[in-house]
Amino acid sequence: MYPKSVSNLIEAFKYFSGVGDKTAERMAFQVLAFDEIQTNFLVDSIKNAKLKIKRCLKCGNYSEEDYCYVCADKTRNKKILCVVEDPKTIIAMEKLGVFQGTYHVLNGLIKALEGINPEDIRLDKLIERINKEQFEEIIIAVKPCLEGEMTALYINSILKGTGITITRLASGIPMGADMEYVDAITLSNAFDNRKKLS
Amino acid sequence: MYPKSVSNLIEAFKYFSGVGDKTAERMAFQVLAFDEIQTNFLVDSIKNAKLKIKRCLKCGNYSEEDYCYVCADKTRNKKILCVVEDPKTIIAMEKLGVFQGTYHVLNGLIKALEGINPEDIRLDKLIERINKEQFEEIIIAVKPCLEGEMTALYINSILKGTGITITRLASGIPMGADMEYVDAITLSNAFDNRKKLS
Repeated sequence: MYPKSVSNLIEAFKYFSGVGDKTAERMAFQVLAFDEIQTNFLVDSIKNAKLKIKRCLKCGNYSEEDYCYVCADKTRNKKILCVVEDPKTIIAMEKLGVFQGTYHVLNGLIKALEGINPEDIRLDKLIERINKEQFEEIIIAVKPCLEGEMTALYINSILKGTGITITRLASGIPMGADMEYVDAITLSNAFDNRKKLS
Repeated sequence: MYPKSVSNLIEAFKYFSGVGDKTAERMAFQVLAFDEIQTNFLVDSIKNAKLKIKRCLKCGNYSEEDYCYVCADKTRNKKILCVVEDPKTIIAMEKLGVFQGTYHVLNGLIKALEGINPEDIRLDKLIERINKEQFEEIIIAVKPCLEGEMTALYINSILKGTGITITRLASGIPMGADMEYVDAITLSNAFDNRKKLS
């Protein structure tokens, strides 16, 4: 029913999670109605983002530079490290502005059942930083869910004996909630009530 | 907070209607996680669709060829013309498979208040076709709303005296609708157009 180029476009939009047949169709028809400026801006933005965005050499955050703006900011507290599961969490936290330390981005969580093991989530980079930098506290801010707890416990176990205070964001964030949708007060409370693990 | 290339990408996704800040952000982060094959397919699909899709020289439907597959199909009834407001309506109707005639696509509806007048919606092309082709019936299938009614009345007025039967899709209560949620105009139409059962 669709010309080939339109059905390809519909398939392409279905790459986005939450976009099904209907939404993809609607988006494809909207593209057909875009003017040249809109089309070029969309295409160029996709290509540019993929071309320019790399991971911060220090923390793993998305960045166009070698070091992301948090790591490059001399006013941030470099003694407190917040370990998050993805760069989206950093954006969410920075928007709420309740944390003034620095970050380390994991590559997701340990998921033993899916074969995602400690060595797959950039924990080696974390160890490297701990040996090189002078952290006083490491706050584990991964999502409160089964995999999050497993990951937190694992990090705690490998950091035991380093003398660094290891904490976990306080419960108060509801189980299963996505970090990026947490409101400021909940997040602030979670920082204030963080629990010492060892 | 975002690198420039990411905030551009977020802005680009906001071109899509129904896509606000949150959805655009989520889509942008998904693009950053796409692999090269996905990214290229997305970008190429957008460019290809814009490059290849043109309007059918006869009816105005989207097509990669000079004539769309409906106009090119010799088995369709060329004596019955269904006038629709956009190519999306053709897709919807073809999916349901209830109409075997051909189409004519308007460029939207007459909206006097917004300065969209009869000459802006491809009605000249409709007149041209009526003079050239041999239609027995023209079914006006634009949306039942104020602008739809105005457009239907206008088309009816300019086609008077051609000897062609002019009809309008029935307006009434849709199958499965709850009577308590039917709006006043729909209900009024349903009363006006009530069918004698015996």
